Amino acid sequence: MTTRTEPDALLLLLGPRPGRDVGRWLQAGLRAAVADGRLEAGAVLPSSRDAAAALGVSRGTVTTAVDVLVGEGLLVARPRSGVVVAALPAPPSGRAGTAAPHPGGAAPGVEPGSGPRPAPGARPVSVGTPDPALFPRAAWARAVRDGVRGLADADLGYPDPQGLPALREALAVHLRRARGAHVAAEDVVVVSGVAQALSLLARLLTAGRVAGARPAGPVRVAVEDPSSRGALELLRDAGLHAVGVPADVEGLRADLLPDDARAVLVTPAHQFPRGVVLGPARRRALLAWAAAGDRLVLEDDYDAELRYDREPVASVQALDPERVVLLGSVSKLLSPALRLGWVVAPPRVVGPLVEAKRHADLGTSVPEQAALAALLGSGAYQRHLRRARLVYQRRRRLLLDALAHALPGVEVGGVAAGLHLVVPLPGPAAERAAVTGLLAAGVPAEPLSGTGVDRHESGVVVGTARVRDGDVERVVRVLRAASLTGSEKLVR
Amino acid sequence: MTTRTEPDALLLLLGPRPGRDVGRWLQAGLRAAVADGRLEAGAVLPSSRDAAAALGVSRGTVTTAVDVLVGEGLLVARPRSGVVVAALPAPPSGRAGTAAPHPGGAAPGVEPGSGPRPAPGARPVSVGTPDPALFPRAAWARAVRDGVRGLADADLGYPDPQGLPALREALAVHLRRARGAHVAAEDVVVVSGVAQALSLLARLLTAGRVAGARPAGPVRVAVEDPSSRGALELLRDAGLHAVGVPADVEGLRADLLPDDARAVLVTPAHQFPRGVVLGPARRRALLAWAAAGDRLVLEDDYDAELRYDREPVASVQALDPERVVLLGSVSKLLSPALRLGWVVAPPRVVGPLVEAKRHADLGTSVPEQAALAALLGSGAYQRHLRRARLVYQRRRRLLLDALAHALPGVEVGGVAAGLHLVVPLPGPAAERAAVTGLLAAGVPAEPLSGTGVDRHESGVVVGTARVRDGDVERVVRVLRAASLTGSEKLVR
Repeated sequence: MTTRTEPDALLLLLGPRPGRDVGRWLQAGLRAAVADGRLEAGAVLPSSRDAAAALGVSRGTVTTAVDVLVGEGLLVARPRSGVVVAALPAPPSGRAGTAAPHPGGAAPGVEPGSGPRPAPGARPVSVGTPDPALFPRAAWARAVRDGVRGLADADLGYPDPQGLPALREALAVHLRRARGAHVAAEDVVVVSGVAQALSLLARLLTAGRVAGARPAGPVRVAVEDPSSRGALELLRDAGLHAVGVPADVEGLRADLLPDDARAVLVTPAHQFPRGVVLGPARRRALLAWAAAGDRLVLEDDYDAELRYDREPVASVQALDPERVVLLGSVSKLLSPALRLGWVVAPPRVVGPLVEAKRHADLGTSVPEQAALAALLGSGAYQRHLRRARLVYQRRRRLLLDALAHALPGVEVGGVAAGLHLVVPLPGPAAERAAVTGLLAAGVPAEPLSGTGVDRHESGVVVGTARVRDGDVERVVRVLRAASLTGSEKLVR
Repeated sequence: MTTRTEPDALLLLLGPRPGRDVGRWLQAGLRAAVADGRLEAGAVLPSSRDAAAALGVSRGTVTTAVDVLVGEGLLVARPRSGVVVAALPAPPSGRAGTAAPHPGGAAPGVEPGSGPRPAPGARPVSVGTPDPALFPRAAWARAVRDGVRGLADADLGYPDPQGLPALREALAVHLRRARGAHVAAEDVVVVSGVAQALSLLARLLTAGRVAGARPAGPVRVAVEDPSSRGALELLRDAGLHAVGVPADVEGLRADLLPDDARAVLVTPAHQFPRGVVLGPARRRALLAWAAAGDRLVLEDDYDAELRYDREPVASVQALDPERVVLLGSVSKLLSPALRLGWVVAPPRVVGPLVEAKRHADLGTSVPEQAALAALLGSGAYQRHLRRARLVYQRRRRLLLDALAHALPGVEVGGVAAGLHLVVPLPGPAAERAAVTGLLAAGVPAEPLSGTGVDRHESGVVVGTARVRDGDVERVVRVLRAASLTGSEKLVR
């Protein structure tokens, strides 16, 4: 099975090198050769140096192409034997969400709740779900092995409900570097995803155990409008009253935050669903509001590391660690199937939160915590981030180029980051047509109107993580047809 | 490092074969040789056939000895290379609970709450914690690898909050076989340990979403007296009113269950802390009480598989699957650090429970669920159970023999199963002396009076999982001294 591919054979496979777009030619050629079996599963590619020489391209062009195809699961980088052609993935299982996806009400780390029920056996695919084909299965298994091997016997009893110290330390280092957060290990609480963090914090707010005593009526919490349906459902389930505050092209209208709210849930790095960054003046207004009434800012940092245009936008938490609670998880970068997240909070929140976590489930699985610590410590997490970013950036670029061509008057939202885009549409009929058409095409989608709290706009939130080259045309066709539905505002 | 040990060399190591107690001689000799380095880490043992021939013992004696030492972590069974001497475990880390354990209020799967606070950095060790040295680290890492490899891409999105279908199927098979439960995959909800199950069920009871509508006052739930402090704390935290019902030598006095309780939390296979089995007449009375008022029986099956005297006692659930909710986890058999458990419940409970689980954390980690499914499916779980049982049985036998000798008048409770024993003591001063002395000796212990709800007896609950040969004398000395404290009832 370990055919060694000669450098010159690559040139034969790929055909003549074009005058420009060499990177795209190399990637497309390799992808096609793997897909149709000319490059067999198990075949070993030549070194980047040899391949670059044979093809007459730079080594960087080769390594970028290899990174992209590794990210797509078509190639596998093995420590000693080099880059190998992957076995093609198995077809989706019977209960797979990919075969018959359902609208989700996807959210910053929070899954669907309301909305149409999925058919029995089918799982909805949220618009914020990463491409599962990119999940580094082998690297995760190795991280579990290494992490478990490194645990002390004492770590294998009942867990520390705040989280494994080694992971809290690794997260503090990572969040300082990658998010500019102001954090030490003792400020971190490990949780089973952002959904659990929200659920626990919501209960603490309801009980008056953080941000002021329990009032007579329900505790009020401000949320962005539009916002995540899943997060809204969690807050309401915990007994909170969610008050919508408009979010526009600069994010949350912090000047409109109500005085009677105890906290606000906000997505500063990448507003959900608009995909915009909270502007500097808004950040100042947000923190002034919090300081004026001992209120809490819950900063949902759900996909802040997936930025394509520039370095990540720093977190708000660093500006006021006493009032901002930073929430994050591995859901967008690794997989939401892992249920691993973190909260960075001031001491007056950490104490009650750890108690709440203990009462909820005693703590998060120690072997998984050890694995994430190993992944962060070895740099494998950061390498995976770079690869995933390359793959997603390329897919979005193709889709956005095609949309710009097909819908020239339409301003697509949220292009700079994340796993979803927002396409405004002329009305509810167009919205329905777009959602239905995209779901039928196997693309996660949800109505923009469904993300509204008090106000409802028409449009569609499109999950882009799995939109590959071959899917672009279909997606564009659906969106173009929908934009022509039920309105005079025709887009030509 | 892979020294092959010759069969005859074993005889030299072990010295002359005694006339009787050949199994004990072999185990003790091998243990000593590994401990003092005469058998080096990495050395490969001869086959059981060769060893048996050289030593003049049966092959069964050899394989039993090997199983015990594998269970103790001194030997490692490798699929192809045979049995290898393990590298000696690292000394406990600075924050290890073994070095400075604290009383815990240990529980059927539920960790300490009230009671003395642990020193900063130290973690309390619950009396129900298994020996972490027995945790099969390599087998768990392999199970994660195999489990993750076998997942469909669709399984790597947001999880099914009810649990991975493959794991629910494997658990149903296992619980039918091992616990006689009446269960199919759709009756199973995967949870992050029994503590989470109790927390979610308690909230459903409080909200009147299972077992009757919400009453004006707090919902009442019956609990055994004595009982688990940790479980009590969880129930109370969720807003329930716990009503103590005496448990005696036949377990819960089911005839005394109050009419105004909506549910009862009970440990039929191994009462905590008494360690007795719920008798047949009591089981019938329990189910009659449940049927008379549409009440729920929460059957905490926490260590039912760790029986030493005979086959496991069947679960109560099989007798009335419509009213009994069966709760279990891997905490006693693998590790409480894993946070993996299950609930078997009738449809009217499964529905609300899955919703509550979704609101709590969206579901349990899929890679861990896949790993447990792989462990159950390959038989590795069952093999580990057999090994662990052998090790614990041997340790308990040594301790019980020594106690019978040192405290001849005292009837030690809970000898037939589990990871703890109950030693009755003449009064509160004796209890304090026993708990303090055991904790100082590094043995998990808690006061029996602390497990009382309304009534308080004196005694000590002793965690036996880690009481090895060398510890027995110390434990017995502490208990004998304590039994002579503050009472005229001297034990000679």
